[in-house]
Amino acid sequence: MAIDRSTVRWSDLDKVAGNGLLHRRLFLGAGAAIAAGFGSAALPGKATGAEALPIESWMKVPGAPFVGYGQPSKYEDKVVRTWNTAPGTTGTGASRTPHHLLDGMITPNGLHFERHHSGIPDINPDAHRLLIHGLVKRPLIFTIETLARYPMESRIAFIECGGNGQLLYQMEPAQVGVQQIQGQVSCAEWTGVRLAVLLEEAGVDPKAKWILAEGADAAGMSRSIPMEKVVDDALIALYQNGEHVRPANGYPMRLLLPGYEGNLNVKWLRRIKLTESPTMTKDETSKYTITLPDGKSLQFVFPQEGKSVITRPSPGLTMKEPGLYEISGLAWSGYGKINKVEVSADGGKSWAAAALQQPVLPKALTRFRMAWQWNGGPAVLQSRAVDDTGYVQPTREQMIAKRGTRTIFHSNAITTWSISDKGEVKHVFA
Amino acid sequence: MAIDRSTVRWSDLDKVAGNGLLHRRLFLGAGAAIAAGFGSAALPGKATGAEALPIESWMKVPGAPFVGYGQPSKYEDKVVRTWNTAPGTTGTGASRTPHHLLDGMITPNGLHFERHHSGIPDINPDAHRLLIHGLVKRPLIFTIETLARYPMESRIAFIECGGNGQLLYQMEPAQVGVQQIQGQVSCAEWTGVRLAVLLEEAGVDPKAKWILAEGADAAGMSRSIPMEKVVDDALIALYQNGEHVRPANGYPMRLLLPGYEGNLNVKWLRRIKLTESPTMTKDETSKYTITLPDGKSLQFVFPQEGKSVITRPSPGLTMKEPGLYEISGLAWSGYGKINKVEVSADGGKSWAAAALQQPVLPKALTRFRMAWQWNGGPAVLQSRAVDDTGYVQPTREQMIAKRGTRTIFHSNAITTWSISDKGEVKHVFA
Repeated sequence: MAIDRSTVRWSDLDKVAGNGLLHRRLFLGAGAAIAAGFGSAALPGKATGAEALPIESWMKVPGAPFVGYGQPSKYEDKVVRTWNTAPGTTGTGASRTPHHLLDGMITPNGLHFERHHSGIPDINPDAHRLLIHGLVKRPLIFTIETLARYPMESRIAFIECGGNGQLLYQMEPAQVGVQQIQGQVSCAEWTGVRLAVLLEEAGVDPKAKWILAEGADAAGMSRSIPMEKVVDDALIALYQNGEHVRPANGYPMRLLLPGYEGNLNVKWLRRIKLTESPTMTKDETSKYTITLPDGKSLQFVFPQEGKSVITRPSPGLTMKEPGLYEISGLAWSGYGKINKVEVSADGGKSWAAAALQQPVLPKALTRFRMAWQWNGGPAVLQSRAVDDTGYVQPTREQMIAKRGTRTIFHSNAITTWSISDKGEVKHVFA
Repeated sequence: MAIDRSTVRWSDLDKVAGNGLLHRRLFLGAGAAIAAGFGSAALPGKATGAEALPIESWMKVPGAPFVGYGQPSKYEDKVVRTWNTAPGTTGTGASRTPHHLLDGMITPNGLHFERHHSGIPDINPDAHRLLIHGLVKRPLIFTIETLARYPMESRIAFIECGGNGQLLYQMEPAQVGVQQIQGQVSCAEWTGVRLAVLLEEAGVDPKAKWILAEGADAAGMSRSIPMEKVVDDALIALYQNGEHVRPANGYPMRLLLPGYEGNLNVKWLRRIKLTESPTMTKDETSKYTITLPDGKSLQFVFPQEGKSVITRPSPGLTMKEPGLYEISGLAWSGYGKINKVEVSADGGKSWAAAALQQPVLPKALTRFRMAWQWNGGPAVLQSRAVDDTGYVQPTREQMIAKRGTRTIFHSNAITTWSISDKGEVKHVFA
């Protein structure tokens, strides 16, 4: 992984694919050498001392005092979620993470996407209970306090709405950006109790093959989940990025099913019922099924398939001048770990492997980075994820050939940005 | 790592050390079986259906609408930082993370500890500049926009104030909790540009052996850092847990020196000057030196040494009844990775290895967990970290034997909690 700093220069770097893509080794180690090209400014003449910088107003007065719970800078008030709501409601709909303005793999709690079926319930944690019943020997009720005594486990995991990316099923490319198209995926460190541990204590009847998970929102959102997944890695999450799960993400507890369709990760969890077969709730019959061209529907499509998207550059982030840039994006797969992300700057004619930010974790967002010398001409940017099961992210054509356009769910096709010779970035189909 | 769920029971688990410590294999895999003992309640008689749960008020009305930037539950308004300020100031002092109320390894941005030498400057990012000058061929000035084009890198790293844990140098154990004693350490995913990359572009004069890093706060906080560390892993961080660095943590950019004394991770970074020798700023002569018993002072003690602390149970979290508990805590080392954390429930007479939450990352917080059967009698809890260089966290006696009590810095001794037969947790020296 180490790079000999004395020899590597951007100008030497292999052109690894068409239209200016450079070798990823720039990102793989310490201190790669770089010829000018990022737009930094050399100081003119002799102005090379501290006097080159003005003493700004904020250096002349004592700064602001401490507060108990901190907030972002007021200058970042555009870094917010956007949302749509169902007609006649205020809290039914989905909000989206502004990935074009973020970097890294963790989504801060204030910007985690949301999908609510009847708004955010105002739950008093002292009154909240979790019931485990149905095909068990000993039905159990848990308070937050009793749950918090159990062995905990932390896991960095993405959650993605089943409807994320649905604009790619449309006939024309929507003229919006990455937040609107792919903003319903986020990633956090979740901490909680393995559901399998609680079931073990309740005593599972061997006839139980499924569970029903029900939320304490006014919609009583509920889904059926096969027992294999529950035993494998289901978590009752009490903490999100270190602190108590946020109200919008299920306070005081949510189900976490790493890699599974977001809707299954039931928020405000109040009830787990063990059953012989799926319950066929309204939320898994009227919604979250994939209707195929022949009119038949796929039900219980659980893992979110392998996927990636370039977050920078992306629409709204205009490129001001030719030169060196980093192409940055996110990749994830509900099947496991990301093995490879390839990037194209010529609309898929040629591809090169991007650098993957370590640690690459299973069923978590993975940040990828690619060096790019933009020559100022037109370019068409794409990314393609491959996971450790060998699954390859499909093109839009491939996805539609398989799924048709009658569904809005599990859209994992390649998202394409075109760049004009003015540096404007646009959503296109290619 | 897998556990045979059909055979492992808490009652079978090895007692691995005195006073009820149980084998860590409970935490190493999926679905360990557990006999009752965590305080969960079996439902009486026939009340085994959903009717066992009341329909709470929040299920009867539509929930709250979407907001652009989310906040914690109003019921968690006690999960806040606490702070002390210097007399006559509002923003000079330190705030502390409430680790007794958190779990996982990530500290949410709103609760990251702070240390300000003249409050939090209100920096307009459009006006902010970073100057690199001194022993370079080509002095450079960067705007946020130009910096953001460079190759980025993400890194999960702890930052710990050099003064964290200083109460352990006192003669008597302060009657406070983990937040007050060890709350000046936090952990985030930081994303930014390698400083080495920028220096390469500026062209380093071989005479340059140190840098001066200066902040844009009213204190002009500045420190000297050896070039080896800069080349190794110094980062100009622009993002913190995905979003722009918070004002209290250096907005719009801070220096990140993984594992090094917090104060060196200069916030609101405006100037890097390459020098032949350390600058001997006020912040590294009047402060942040370790005065030994003989009156001599150690200067430039950079890495925070290996350390750990139990966060749960800890003072303020009273244990209500005998039974099974998870002992949970944090370990970290500025030298590298945590290799092992041992826990004692009998004041250091016997020790057992805790489970380490994966992934264990170098110079990051590592969550450890230990199963414990509290018999309701007195107990004395301690944790001891060992890192991958073989460094072993010292007892308080060992630390004071080496360092004396004339300093407040780099206190990394074992913190001890005593538990009374009433379940009250108290800070003690042992």
